[in-house]
Formats: sequence, structure tokens, C-alpha cells
Amino acid sequence: MAAAGPEIERLIQLLAKLPGLGPRSARRAALHLLTRRGQLLEPLSEAMRIACERVEVCSTCANVDTQNPCSICRDGRRDPSTIVVVEDVSDLWALERSAAISARYHVLGGTLSALDGRGPEDLNLGTLAERARAPEVKEVILAVNATVEGQTTAHYVTDLLTDAEVKVTRLAHGVPVGGELDYLDDGTLAAAIRSRTTF
Amino acid sequence: MAAAGPEIERLIQLLAKLPGLGPRSARRAALHLLTRRGQLLEPLSEAMRIACERVEVCSTCANVDTQNPCSICRDGRRDPSTIVVVEDVSDLWALERSAAISARYHVLGGTLSALDGRGPEDLNLGTLAERARAPEVKEVILAVNATVEGQTTAHYVTDLLTDAEVKVTRLAHGVPVGGELDYLDDGTLAAAIRSRTTF
Repeated sequence: MAAAGPEIERLIQLLAKLPGLGPRSARRAALHLLTRRGQLLEPLSEAMRIACERVEVCSTCANVDTQNPCSICRDGRRDPSTIVVVEDVSDLWALERSAAISARYHVLGGTLSALDGRGPEDLNLGTLAERARAPEVKEVILAVNATVEGQTTAHYVTDLLTDAEVKVTRLAHGVPVGGELDYLDDGTLAAAIRSRTTF
Repeated sequence: MAAAGPEIERLIQLLAKLPGLGPRSARRAALHLLTRRGQLLEPLSEAMRIACERVEVCSTCANVDTQNPCSICRDGRRDPSTIVVVEDVSDLWALERSAAISARYHVLGGTLSALDGRGPEDLNLGTLAERARAPEVKEVILAVNATVEGQTTAHYVTDLLTDAEVKVTRLAHGVPVGGELDYLDDGTLAAAIRSRTTF
């Protein structure tokens, strides 16, 4: 496009690579940025520069943070006996938001997938068995997605941990809190019935 | 959120201000950036830094570009007799993409709106009458949106240009190319009938 210089075109192209933005919305976002220089473009540019400089992948759990080991791995108040295995950092963030558990994590960075050609060597599995063998670790919770890939990965991880003296658990399946039975799939309903508890 | 440092939180908050991204998708976008540092975060950070430094608002037409006057105002091959008045830079970009006209532009930066309290002083109207009075200018095309605010603004601009010796025109109303009559509103259909042309 001749109307905007190559610098603006490049900004649009890069913004279009963000999830949730297509070529059209990236153009809109670029314009939004360019017309709000002081309020948005400059602060965002600065925030990205800082992220570039400071964000690291934790060498223990593969969380992203501005320190390595990450603030979760450093946090002495967390229960050292439990490691929560998640697929992605977004899952770690979701669990932290829920404040459901105060443990340490292990981010796999994906799932096994024969279809997409992702094998064990593509996941952050190398240090997991070693971490699980540490004397203080008593439980590994497999907080992977309830998808075929997630479950395949869970089985693989379980096999990997057979010689570590830890209890391997998985998240409960059931009716989501606030969910209506009418809208749930059969698999979820069946799981909820199977795992019913005393009222 | 304790899981990510304040630097990452700030990045998420700023990304959430982009049109098309909410708090949830901004978190997803931030994570996408942080896990693709070399391919995306660094180039985007650099593109934004360059945009911050170089992008200016054209003092003639209010287009955004990396030079002032902008590349369109400088372009000697464009028809100097026509000024296309648009609401926003996005409209200018849309017209440039269509390659429908090779003229110069005048970006108003919005519309008059009694409801939102935007008066003539909030628009880039100061230099328009002066530009239209230049001897080479013969026509001003009002390429504003076909909304109430757009049309109000069009009328105001027409009044502003009464003493300039220019022809003031507006975009044609009618059936969009590729559009189906069945899905069009009555106003568009009536306009299309009124402005029918010989086949």
C-alpha cells in the first residue's frame, strides 16, 4: 500500500501475527497506536523493549518471568511437596488466577501429538523425572487439558515417573461450576456420574 | 497476578487497549509474544520503536506517515485539482487500497457529533478552506461515511467551502458491488433507484 510507509506496513504485518488479530484488525490496531502515540504507542513500545530485555524462561519449570529461577520456583512459602504439570504457561497463569493451589509447576510447552509430529523430545520432559525424584516431592498433579493429546501426554508422563516415589494424580472430571447439565457433552456427564460424591 | 512479574502485567494491560483485544486475548497475545521472542517480540518491539521515532502527522492533510508533508502530499504524479475529504486515516487507507482515485486527501480526524460533544473546533477543518482556495483545486470530494454524523459533517464542510470556487461532490449511494438486494436496507435501495443509470 502506497499510503503508508514501509515502517507502518511492517508494524501492521507484525501485529497481524498476534493471536486474535487478522490483517484487517491489525491495520486498525496499528492506526489506533499511531494516533495515540503518547498514551499507547510509546508505553507499549517501552513495555515490549523491557520484556525483550528482562523476560526469561525459568530453567527449572519453564515458566516465563523476569527472573530465573522464576518467582514461583523461588517462593519459599509454596508447598514443595507438589509439582503441577501443565501444558503451557497460559495454563499456569489460569491456575494461579484461580488460587486453587500453592505449589510449584512444570511447564511441558505442549502435548505429544502424532498428527502434528510432536514427540517427547519436543517437550520439556528432561528435568521432570529428576525434579520428581527430589526427596521433598510427594505428588505430581497432571493438570493437562482433557483432550486426546493432553491425555496421551498424561499417560506418557505417568510412565516416565514410575520409578520416582511420587503419587501421580490428575484433575477431576465433572460438571463445571455454574454449568448446566443440558449443555454438557455425554463424556462429561458420564464422568460426573462415575465420580459422584456424598452430598 | 503473582505468576507473572509487573513488567509482563503491564504488557498485558497495554495490549488490552488495542481494538479487537480484550483482557483475555491480550493475555494470550502477551504469552504468544513472550514465547516467540526472536520471531515476534523483538521485531515488533523494534517496529514500534521506529514508529515512535519516525511517524508524524502530515501538517497539510493530517495523514500519518514517516515524512511530513506525507508521501501522498509530496507525490507530484497525483491530480492536484482534487481534494478527497475523509473522516479518518483508515478511510484514506481504504481508498488508497481501492486505487479508485489518485488525488490528495484531507483527514478530518472524526465527525461532528452533538451527542459526543464534538464540534468543528475538534476537527482538522482550519486549513481545509485555505487548501480549497488554492488556484489548482477544482473539486472537493466528501468521502465521509454514510452515517448521520458523516452527513452532518458533510453539510458543515459544504457550508465552509461556499466562498471557495470549487465543485463539492459526495460519494454515490447505491447497491454495493457483489451485494444482494434482499439483504439491503430500504434507504440504500431507494437511493439506488433514485440514482439509476442507463444500462
